[in-house]
Amino acid sequence: MTHNAIELVEVGPRDGLQNEPDIISTRSKLELIERMLGFGARRLEVASFVHPARVPQMADAEDVIAGLPDRADATYIGLALNKRGVMRGIATREGGKRGIDQIGCVLVASDTFGQKNQGQTIAEGIAENRDMIRFAKAEGIRAQITISAAFGCPFEGEVKPETVLQIAEEMAAEAPEEIALADTIGVGTPAQVSDLFGKLRELLGGKIPMRAHFHNTRGTGIANAWAAYQAGVLIFDASLGGLGGCPFAPKATGNIATEDLIYMMEHSGIDSGVDLEAAITTNHWFAEKLGRQLPSMVARAA
Amino acid sequence: MTHNAIELVEVGPRDGLQNEPDIISTRSKLELIERMLGFGARRLEVASFVHPARVPQMADAEDVIAGLPDRADATYIGLALNKRGVMRGIATREGGKRGIDQIGCVLVASDTFGQKNQGQTIAEGIAENRDMIRFAKAEGIRAQITISAAFGCPFEGEVKPETVLQIAEEMAAEAPEEIALADTIGVGTPAQVSDLFGKLRELLGGKIPMRAHFHNTRGTGIANAWAAYQAGVLIFDASLGGLGGCPFAPKATGNIATEDLIYMMEHSGIDSGVDLEAAITTNHWFAEKLGRQLPSMVARAA
Repeated sequence: MTHNAIELVEVGPRDGLQNEPDIISTRSKLELIERMLGFGARRLEVASFVHPARVPQMADAEDVIAGLPDRADATYIGLALNKRGVMRGIATREGGKRGIDQIGCVLVASDTFGQKNQGQTIAEGIAENRDMIRFAKAEGIRAQITISAAFGCPFEGEVKPETVLQIAEEMAAEAPEEIALADTIGVGTPAQVSDLFGKLRELLGGKIPMRAHFHNTRGTGIANAWAAYQAGVLIFDASLGGLGGCPFAPKATGNIATEDLIYMMEHSGIDSGVDLEAAITTNHWFAEKLGRQLPSMVARAA
Repeated sequence: MTHNAIELVEVGPRDGLQNEPDIISTRSKLELIERMLGFGARRLEVASFVHPARVPQMADAEDVIAGLPDRADATYIGLALNKRGVMRGIATREGGKRGIDQIGCVLVASDTFGQKNQGQTIAEGIAENRDMIRFAKAEGIRAQITISAAFGCPFEGEVKPETVLQIAEEMAAEAPEEIALADTIGVGTPAQVSDLFGKLRELLGGKIPMRAHFHNTRGTGIANAWAAYQAGVLIFDASLGGLGGCPFAPKATGNIATEDLIYMMEHSGIDSGVDLEAAITTNHWFAEKLGRQLPSMVARAA
């Protein structure tokens, strides 16, 4: 049996940290990113362009980006929730600076959650994200899109697969770099993941890569990653140690842990380019900085 | 898509508690078991017949068993590591008492771990367990067998699938009630689970049911349960809250949590007869008794 390698998108610096109550210094964020590059992460979500009043932890987004190592083998993602965010992303590249390499757009598959999280209904999100992708492309920067709350909404409960697939179809028309489905609140199960990614795969017909974003809130995160892999997904978001959560989603605990994802994949014969031991060492270093153990089970067992 | 229902074997009272540093009173154990019956568990591992010097928590095995509610719809399992254990199990039924309904035999798929855990090499374990199953049967009590460390050994590392399958073949000849594969130290991955249970299924040819026993030490427990389900396993060990571990396996943390298993199954359209809300309530009651939060993610998110 041959196995396709996977690609890790290390979201620790953004999704992982945005929920931290204490502000992490720009310098510490940059040290974390350098160490992540050191353990083999090659694509990293480094910041989000949100209003500092909403997510104070991301107030230094431009400073973090200005301090990123200029490595040819790295891809830096900046998250944007609206056109203003895209403009901030583009601005990081002005004056010949490297800036970010990719804009991550986010569209919530629920009217209620979308309105609470970024002031948009689904229809408004589709219109806004269409503009965002076009705008980014016009400025020569790659853009990808994440459909969040794709497996359930903290306010509305069930999210219909048709809703998610309709959004995906509208967005696919803009030819983004990739389309991700995110279980933002960690309610999804492997059966649901197989079903929804199976349908997305069919819809995209191999023309646009799929990415998966899971949270481990109910213990299903790693099972969902495996189900997604089986459904053809080869790009996975994860955060070092399982840091993270969403400040606007009640009880949405951490992302799946990078170490746990890599352990499962590596011991299934699936390569990721990540040095697991080095990731665990980075976890222990950062856990000491935060003064608490991180959720990753693999790092605890080490 | 139709889904086969699963059967939960609630191992909290034995595998879950044996590692607890403080001795739980017989009365509390019985209250825990009654509450587990209350949330819908119908098969329970209630005690093990080991020497109290080795596992002090199980010193009251006979007292727990004497106090079990005499319910026709319940199956009580007593674990035995050798013939002496089987004799103790049989003795619980003497004098017209209900006692236990089933003997759980255990055979370690590693010479080193087997010797440390129960003083047996694999070959000695095969001989002993053959006798144990025959002995139980002769006394009119059902016996099933668990092949432990089937996915890896804390001392030897890799455990070869052929080793596990050879043990299974030897044991299948004794026609036990079921054969379980246990990832005692929580190192297994879904790819490994699919492979090994797939091969076991082939070997058993549907004549003997399969059971799966996973620990979540490296975060793969729920993913492994899903892979096992896909490979045809319908009986799953789990412990309330994810209590548990093995005192003789270094860093072998808890069993997969009953709540997390049931959540995944229930939200995949797979019935288990367990009332998830009631299980979570029982978790919170017992967590308060122990004075600490239990690992189950679902119970934390509730």
